[in-house]
Amino acid sequence: MQQFQIRTDLALEATESVKKKEAGQLRGVSIEEYDVMEDVHISKVVIMSKNAAKSMGKPTGTYITLEAPDLQESDEDYHREISEELAKQLRSVLPDIGNEKSILVVGLGNRDVTADALGPSTVDNLFITRHIIREYGKQAYHASKMHQISALVPGVMAKTGMETAEIIKGVIKVTEPDIVIVIDALAARSVKRLNRTVQITDTGIHPGSGVGNHRNALTKESLGIPVIAIGIPMVVDAGTIVCDALEKLSQEYDEGKASLDYFRNNADTQLHNMYVTAKNIDETTKRLSFTLSEAINIALDMEA
Amino acid sequence: MQQFQIRTDLALEATESVKKKEAGQLRGVSIEEYDVMEDVHISKVVIMSKNAAKSMGKPTGTYITLEAPDLQESDEDYHREISEELAKQLRSVLPDIGNEKSILVVGLGNRDVTADALGPSTVDNLFITRHIIREYGKQAYHASKMHQISALVPGVMAKTGMETAEIIKGVIKVTEPDIVIVIDALAARSVKRLNRTVQITDTGIHPGSGVGNHRNALTKESLGIPVIAIGIPMVVDAGTIVCDALEKLSQEYDEGKASLDYFRNNADTQLHNMYVTAKNIDETTKRLSFTLSEAINIALDMEA
Amino acid sequence: MQQFQIRTDLALEATESVKKKEAGQLRGVSIEEYDVMEDVHISKVVIMSKNAAKSMGKPTGTYITLEAPDLQESDEDYHREISEELAKQLRSVLPDIGNEKSILVVGLGNRDVTADALGPSTVDNLFITRHIIREYGKQAYHASKMHQISALVPGVMAKTGMETAEIIKGVIKVTEPDIVIVIDALAARSVKRLNRTVQITDTGIHPGSGVGNHRNALTKESLGIPVIAIGIPMVVDAGTIVCDALEKLSQEYDEGKASLDYFRNNADTQLHNMYVTAKNIDETTKRLSFTLSEAINIALDMEA
Amino acid sequence: MQQFQIRTDLALEATESVKKKEAGQLRGVSIEEYDVMEDVHISKVVIMSKNAAKSMGKPTGTYITLEAPDLQESDEDYHREISEELAKQLRSVLPDIGNEKSILVVGLGNRDVTADALGPSTVDNLFITRHIIREYGKQAYHASKMHQISALVPGVMAKTGMETAEIIKGVIKVTEPDIVIVIDALAARSVKRLNRTVQITDTGIHPGSGVGNHRNALTKESLGIPVIAIGIPMVVDAGTIVCDALEKLSQEYDEGKASLDYFRNNADTQLHNMYVTAKNIDETTKRLSFTLSEAINIALDMEA
Repeated sequence: MQQFQIRTDLALEATESVKKKEAGQLRGVSIEEYDVMEDVHISKVVIMSKNAAKSMGKPTGTYITLEAPDLQESDEDYHREISEELAKQLRSVLPDIGNEKSILVVGLGNRDVTADALGPSTVDNLFITRHIIREYGKQAYHASKMHQISALVPGVMAKTGMETAEIIKGVIKVTEPDIVIVIDALAARSVKRLNRTVQITDTGIHPGSGVGNHRNALTKESLGIPVIAIGIPMVVDAGTIVCDALEKLSQEYDEGKASLDYFRNNADTQLHNMYVTAKNIDETTKRLSFTLSEAINIALDMEA
Repeated sequence: MQQFQIRTDLALEATESVKKKEAGQLRGVSIEEYDVMEDVHISKVVIMSKNAAKSMGKPTGTYITLEAPDLQESDEDYHREISEELAKQLRSVLPDIGNEKSILVVGLGNRDVTADALGPSTVDNLFITRHIIREYGKQAYHASKMHQISALVPGVMAKTGMETAEIIKGVIKVTEPDIVIVIDALAARSVKRLNRTVQITDTGIHPGSGVGNHRNALTKESLGIPVIAIGIPMVVDAGTIVCDALEKLSQEYDEGKASLDYFRNNADTQLHNMYVTAKNIDETTKRLSFTLSEAINIALDMEA
Repeated sequence: MQQFQIRTDLALEATESVKKKEAGQLRGVSIEEYDVMEDVHISKVVIMSKNAAKSMGKPTGTYITLEAPDLQESDEDYHREISEELAKQLRSVLPDIGNEKSILVVGLGNRDVTADALGPSTVDNLFITRHIIREYGKQAYHASKMHQISALVPGVMAKTGMETAEIIKGVIKVTEPDIVIVIDALAARSVKRLNRTVQITDTGIHPGSGVGNHRNALTKESLGIPVIAIGIPMVVDAGTIVCDALEKLSQEYDEGKASLDYFRNNADTQLHNMYVTAKNIDETTKRLSFTLSEAINIALDMEA
Repeated sequence: MQQFQIRTDLALEATESVKKKEAGQLRGVSIEEYDVMEDVHISKVVIMSKNAAKSMGKPTGTYITLEAPDLQESDEDYHREISEELAKQLRSVLPDIGNEKSILVVGLGNRDVTADALGPSTVDNLFITRHIIREYGKQAYHASKMHQISALVPGVMAKTGMETAEIIKGVIKVTEPDIVIVIDALAARSVKRLNRTVQITDTGIHPGSGVGNHRNALTKESLGIPVIAIGIPMVVDAGTIVCDALEKLSQEYDEGKASLDYFRNNADTQLHNMYVTAKNIDETTKRLSFTLSEAINIALDMEA
């Protein structure tokens, strides 16, 4: 039914229409939804078969979405309780995380573009241990079990001249982590997702989804080790918003199709390279990156 | 004709429909338009009578608009030629600028919000002379004639607890400049104005126009000395974009009015506190503020 | 005894030699010292008479110094317990603070120079209430008693062309606060004070003290209302360090005076415009400004 | 003769005493010095034999130093003429640079620590071409000969948990450049070198030299391809300054040796983790990084 390209990184959005109607009964898909606290909603979609993947338009794997309207608001302890819930969800997709691992966390995106800085900012607050453990052992932390955590901000292709995947592959070859976690700012289709939805998936990042093309595939297939991706929608493509409004209209006014198409194309052209963000995007990025970094710190603390 | 609030700071946009049809013949309004170089267009609207002011919905005074699509693009010498044209236009509205003046330049807006940082960033690159001239005289610069330039970044009310106008009034009382120049990021109604249109006016800044309310009136009446305002549209209100698309539609589908109103209200609610910016807003702000500061430096250089 | 200019903003340092030997018995000076918790030391010097002021080389008033080696270290809750002790000390010098006041907090220094950014950064995290109370009343905060807090970052003279005192005077004239609190990065004489000593005084800021000359007098005499100054030493003048080492030497080697003077002058010339800072000054400024802003927020919370 | 560790990254300084006295006559060392314009001095030391390397305490290779007091000053075109001279010198050590190469430029150091940000800031202004040439060919630039330029900011070990060398090795493995250029902020021994001396060498970077240990060896041996290192001294270790003053003294006062040693140790302890920088280090880093990036851009432009 969709005549134009949907620009979204959110599995929840991409599969929304399908999900509502059929996914529940679709073979090879399990859906679980529940509230973990007031106003914090978790949905967990597991796509188990190739057929289901095809129907859903998403690779097989687990997609966890946490929705919390409060995330948009400033909070004295940076939403500690949400960080803890995210940590729990994150652990559920980290393979064999009860045993000591070497884990590389990668902050994707452009540090100098506010709406794209979520990944780099998150990485800035991580608790990094690999170099200390390798030099002084776990005893430096008085710990009996401990992951080796390292972190990388590869930068974007326009500034490095290299694919993000090339840089990550090289670093993995030499430092040999067991797992990669990648953090990225996402594009959503609807402003109602902005800055309040966190997506965790064990399928990594696939080329062609979302607005940015600052990356190509970051998956177990391409990198050789499990890739967990964490993202928060920070922008909506401006064209998408107008198109969506028009789409809804066209469902009611069949006679006006042609004219609606005209406006749609117009919006697409005029709004190219424009995006919609919250007015307080600078502060929001700072806050959300802190909530995420705490979630990762908690999830990777073996004694927590 | 307009059924909903237009959010724009641009005189050019606010008067566009009127201007096109009638302004030319309106008594008390003069309009002049010309190209100064390839792809740089100047329009100068002078509103001379109270009646004309009422018809145009703008205070009496001079409104100069420079439009240059190139401003959006990065350029090795930061669009020096546009800075020079802006300097010329700016001089044309600065009163008695052939004689030495004390001039206070004020950078409005929030330094920490990329899309609102144009004013503060512009002020950062100005050539400041007041303290040197007062301490050592013009001879410190080997100059025979020289303006005393001072600059202020008052900050926004949410961070200062004070109206911008209060801070500026106080500073004027004590430092007694002859003229104030205020720089501000504007909101436009159409994305086609973003980052490529500069507006210079001798009417100062009036409350209620534009998106932000980080200021109230900054005018000759309120401050006691001439106020020149310079602005560049950096954002479009997200709701405005959808509303504008719908407005155009409703001109064609009279039967659909009610439904269009529904979508319009919806857009307004959902898109509240959202805005549309160019994807490279961070870099754009840096570049445009440099072009502006050079324009002011040239305009205020008595030996240039 | 001192043959060369001491560059220090710290009362504790300026009066150290005097204090140790005589201040205890000096008429018109009271000295109190105590530990408030492990490794947090308070000293409170009150200079009560003009004679005492002359002997001590400092204006009459109260000087409170908090020394806490831990302040140099990063801490999960940003040294909350030290913020609370500072709040208590700050209240002790704020006049009539049990009743509702209008209080202007001024962040001195240059936001773009890391070692001088303490004041601006502190102001960024303050809880600002004046505009809300004036618009909506205290009920907006569900409070029965509440101070009106406003804040200003005036910038430095090289960038504004105006004396800091001119800007502050102007703002006071128009907004009429009851009390001014000024925050500033200080210069110390000894590296052992850096980033671990907080000075609170009710004497304001006097010209000529410290390294910077980004200000002239900010006192009750010059501004017309009480001025409380809070500062933390962030730099040591590089020349001072060498001079101090040489001074100590010269006390042992009388015969070497001339040669020592030669080296001293040399150090002064070569090290002009150089200063000594901690290697992690960028991170330290961020942390300390947060500890200070919390101290002020607590001290000015009437229901705390 | 030196009883304490000299902390310097500058070949010029390390070899100064040797150079002056003997290097000229030392077999296996050639020294060339000349002025290229007013107040721009070039010195070129080539260490050709293992014996000479041992005598000089530096690996065999070419060391070019450009000294220009003007570099410390702000300049309208960011010292374009010095960028051009640096480009010329840089070309002289880049192997086979007349033919098309793939060149990786690495900005060492910590972006968040002003005095250590020279490398990352330089890389921010480079003209990056690799991704464009690989996707669209040289014709995208209308050029017949062109290098493929890529750039990397690996970050510091405390924030990545990885040795800088590990990250660079990995990226080289996957992207296979022909040459690496590394940029780094250096430590000097004397403040008179700060911010005005540029060192270019084809020996790469060797562990243990200089203050920072944010890297280990980056040399042709360790990375497998030629490594050109460019550096500018941005800091002097604070202890070094006092020690140097004392050292000079001790040459005159033999009887005072013991006491001088006492002060020296004291300075070392107290000044640990302190450094001396120019007061305007924030602005200086910005300017010098621009001069360097232009130098590299010019040197790598095959049609310049």
